[in-house]
Amino acid sequence: MTRPTATLLISCPDRQGLVATIANFIYSYGGNIVHADQHTDFERGVFLSRVEWQLDGFNLPREIIAPAFEAIAFPLEANWEVHFSDEIPRLAIWVTQQDHCLLDLLWRQRAKELPAEIPLILSNHETLRPIAERFGIDYHHIPISSQTKAESEARQLDLLQEYNIDLAVLAKYMQILSTDFIDRFPKIINIHHSFLPAFPGARPYHRAHKRGVKIIGATAHYATVDLDEGPIVEQDVVRVSHRDEVADLIRKGKDLERMVLARAVRLHLQHRVLVYGNRTVVFS
Amino acid sequence: MTRPTATLLISCPDRQGLVATIANFIYSYGGNIVHADQHTDFERGVFLSRVEWQLDGFNLPREIIAPAFEAIAFPLEANWEVHFSDEIPRLAIWVTQQDHCLLDLLWRQRAKELPAEIPLILSNHETLRPIAERFGIDYHHIPISSQTKAESEARQLDLLQEYNIDLAVLAKYMQILSTDFIDRFPKIINIHHSFLPAFPGARPYHRAHKRGVKIIGATAHYATVDLDEGPIVEQDVVRVSHRDEVADLIRKGKDLERMVLARAVRLHLQHRVLVYGNRTVVFS
Amino acid sequence: MTRPTATLLISCPDRQGLVATIANFIYSYGGNIVHADQHTDFERGVFLSRVEWQLDGFNLPREIIAPAFEAIAFPLEANWEVHFSDEIPRLAIWVTQQDHCLLDLLWRQRAKELPAEIPLILSNHETLRPIAERFGIDYHHIPISSQTKAESEARQLDLLQEYNIDLAVLAKYMQILSTDFIDRFPKIINIHHSFLPAFPGARPYHRAHKRGVKIIGATAHYATVDLDEGPIVEQDVVRVSHRDEVADLIRKGKDLERMVLARAVRLHLQHRVLVYGNRTVVFS
Amino acid sequence: MTRPTATLLISCPDRQGLVATIANFIYSYGGNIVHADQHTDFERGVFLSRVEWQLDGFNLPREIIAPAFEAIAFPLEANWEVHFSDEIPRLAIWVTQQDHCLLDLLWRQRAKELPAEIPLILSNHETLRPIAERFGIDYHHIPISSQTKAESEARQLDLLQEYNIDLAVLAKYMQILSTDFIDRFPKIINIHHSFLPAFPGARPYHRAHKRGVKIIGATAHYATVDLDEGPIVEQDVVRVSHRDEVADLIRKGKDLERMVLARAVRLHLQHRVLVYGNRTVVFS
Repeated sequence: MTRPTATLLISCPDRQGLVATIANFIYSYGGNIVHADQHTDFERGVFLSRVEWQLDGFNLPREIIAPAFEAIAFPLEANWEVHFSDEIPRLAIWVTQQDHCLLDLLWRQRAKELPAEIPLILSNHETLRPIAERFGIDYHHIPISSQTKAESEARQLDLLQEYNIDLAVLAKYMQILSTDFIDRFPKIINIHHSFLPAFPGARPYHRAHKRGVKIIGATAHYATVDLDEGPIVEQDVVRVSHRDEVADLIRKGKDLERMVLARAVRLHLQHRVLVYGNRTVVFS
Repeated sequence: MTRPTATLLISCPDRQGLVATIANFIYSYGGNIVHADQHTDFERGVFLSRVEWQLDGFNLPREIIAPAFEAIAFPLEANWEVHFSDEIPRLAIWVTQQDHCLLDLLWRQRAKELPAEIPLILSNHETLRPIAERFGIDYHHIPISSQTKAESEARQLDLLQEYNIDLAVLAKYMQILSTDFIDRFPKIINIHHSFLPAFPGARPYHRAHKRGVKIIGATAHYATVDLDEGPIVEQDVVRVSHRDEVADLIRKGKDLERMVLARAVRLHLQHRVLVYGNRTVVFS
Repeated sequence: MTRPTATLLISCPDRQGLVATIANFIYSYGGNIVHADQHTDFERGVFLSRVEWQLDGFNLPREIIAPAFEAIAFPLEANWEVHFSDEIPRLAIWVTQQDHCLLDLLWRQRAKELPAEIPLILSNHETLRPIAERFGIDYHHIPISSQTKAESEARQLDLLQEYNIDLAVLAKYMQILSTDFIDRFPKIINIHHSFLPAFPGARPYHRAHKRGVKIIGATAHYATVDLDEGPIVEQDVVRVSHRDEVADLIRKGKDLERMVLARAVRLHLQHRVLVYGNRTVVFS
Repeated sequence: MTRPTATLLISCPDRQGLVATIANFIYSYGGNIVHADQHTDFERGVFLSRVEWQLDGFNLPREIIAPAFEAIAFPLEANWEVHFSDEIPRLAIWVTQQDHCLLDLLWRQRAKELPAEIPLILSNHETLRPIAERFGIDYHHIPISSQTKAESEARQLDLLQEYNIDLAVLAKYMQILSTDFIDRFPKIINIHHSFLPAFPGARPYHRAHKRGVKIIGATAHYATVDLDEGPIVEQDVVRVSHRDEVADLIRKGKDLERMVLARAVRLHLQHRVLVYGNRTVVFS
């Protein structure tokens, strides 16, 4: 299936006829739906849906789809977005010194597992520049200190704009972003090296070892102003035993981190994740 | 959500407008969809869907729903069925001598995890009759031998009819059903104690131990005339090690068997499983 | 392997020759080791080991084994215990109103998965008395209120002594035991319905749902005076999705709870768990 | 723990005193055991053990350890080997056209997860030569055809000898080795892209998709003359659904393959795997 598709992500107050309304909009212009999924949160009275249809034979010019749908969405008080599968999102990867998540994302992008371009790598260290050079990706080293944080973030935001970035991936970027930054650029996925909400914050593997847990985890979530409190996209775990020292937890955790982060990024890039409140609906 | 719902399961050749057609049917009579999921098998050109809507406020008498929908389904060459959540399916459980799957299903039914009535237990042994008596369920002991097989199956079919059974669950019933039987009563879920297609047939745990596998599994599938070849509904696995002898595999496997069988039965009872070809779509 | 064995659990400051010392003790009296495992925590300088040997042909009367080994253990400053596989431990199960863990433990004990006798069930409600009666187990209903807590615990301790209980299993006993109680009877395994240290305390499934986690867990641990802070014996997890409401988390969690608790109790009964500090070594 | 250690792997007919005999040998020369694990296969009467001790303070010159231990092992009819942690094994990686397992192994070796040198990559294609060049590893392209197979294998054996290779890793090398080859160089780990014994041979993902399984797997095993029948070192699985087409199975499977292969290679390199019969004991 490499023919281009459009994908609608929508959430609105629940009412009768929503599935029919959306399906009729697509059908009336000759669209063939290839994936439709829907979820209703009855407690909060929220309808959420993802619909993907083929653009071949769809009798509405691409640039008219959004305005046409807005006429339908407005009375529903809906939040919605439409994406086209042949408009490739642009990713910036943020790193500090660890290379495993970065290499994994780059490898997957080359292997066509991630439908994205990666034109930019940002770091507060020089360490991983050789990787960027090998892959032919621009690498910007922006040191961070408490004195220069505001200035550094301003430069980061400039770069995100300059490179026309759609999604920032914090691939073991061991720095906290300011509230102001996240307000201005909210499309950020972070990987935290614990099974949240266990062990938020620093040194989770050391604390997991100290607590004597039998399973460790990793969590990919959207970054929010509350550290490690953002909407969770994906989690996974692995067993550990008394034989595993902190170094073993770190080693096993690296595999978790790259798997979980890669899955979350892929789900986001395929427009399969809807955020509402502090939760996600993942149409997988 | 204890208000009654209707659930449509449908499969038909793929074409444009199917989602809209179904959604419009429900909406036009004032139905509120609570769950809609859809899958298209592009390779085979098959559209499959599950739609569930509330019956409160649905302006079509229950007995008219099926004929009304047939008018829509006929030109689509669709296979379909409609179920009502307050019409409780009736289960027969078939056992031989092991009690773990039986007890698990009975406990879950009492705990309201399985929306079903269980009026009948069938066995080729007397062993588990006390369990049936404790739960107040009729227990029929039908011995099986190669000479009496046809006669025994005739009696089993009579009982299924007499008790108005919708689904037969082979909960470690260690006998093979004839082709004729399955033709006449095809709604049968079986639990096989291996990760199919590994180790079909007899003594899978012994063979898994001999082969030195590091993981064992269990498989719930619809029974077909080809032994252990029917459409798979659910599978799960557990790690084993060199320390596990055959008895340990059997012990660990029992937990797998009861979990996997219970999940498959629940999915079936909630009308979440669509069979096509030798595959299942599970709308979970 | 139903021939009786002795099992030594030992921990002491690490030094050279400990494996040899223990093995020689057993070999010098003609013992055949069937399982020997050892772990050294280098950070803390602690040696921990489990050794199991056959009593057939062991030339030391059973009642002399402990004093004879004390002569070896004393200079090592060791903590140790010896158990005999044909001396069946006695379990008390504590419940409140939920039956799933209780039924699971009773079924496993009957199925010979748990090498234990279960002469006593304690509860702060009458609800589960019929289960106790069906299995022929004494059931003591001891209501708890803030006024009567001390008195109730005194009565509980009396019962543990009267029934000669080796291990108390809190099988969804939704009450906190006092420090004094745990000091007097420290052999207690509790099941907590979350993946500790996430969601300690009350209503973990509600909080997991609110947080939007993608995986839930259960934790079996030894009870200590700090609630949900005791040494962890076993944990397991299961995936959940946006479709799972709190009731689904509770349902899925029940399966986790009974599996995890049963595994932890079995490991303890087989003398496979060594506690040191707030951690466990599980020789599985 | 970077101080050098010696590791003994031993298997022999079970008898009394084996643990003591081995521990005494080490203790008598002042060795400090850091890991001792033992397994007895009672069915076959086989004792198997792994013992690791620190060489610092061990009063036996390294080159005398093997002859000295042979004096003990000979009367026990034991198979045994001793390895030293600072003698780094040499790996050859065999590939065809897929790069994911190769890159993963190389990354892990650089990240010090694999205690090995990797001086040689062998392939029947030129495709992956650039990777070898980037990592500074010799790459030998040896085309295979039915006419040249014997000749090619002779050249491969020469290279293994020339590079002094201890372990060959078939990292998606899609060719079958001859019986003669395996007889001459039996230390080979292969990754098979299915949950063996399900789907041995060609195109396992296609066959898994056709069968409609709900879980797929990968298996790392020692190569033997019977294809996909060798002793299993490690397996793992991942869930799939009706939404996963063959391409998705392949994508998910790649992650499994590199994880499972890496774990198996690491276990082998740490001398944690003992083969007996067609089974492995993994002292992890």
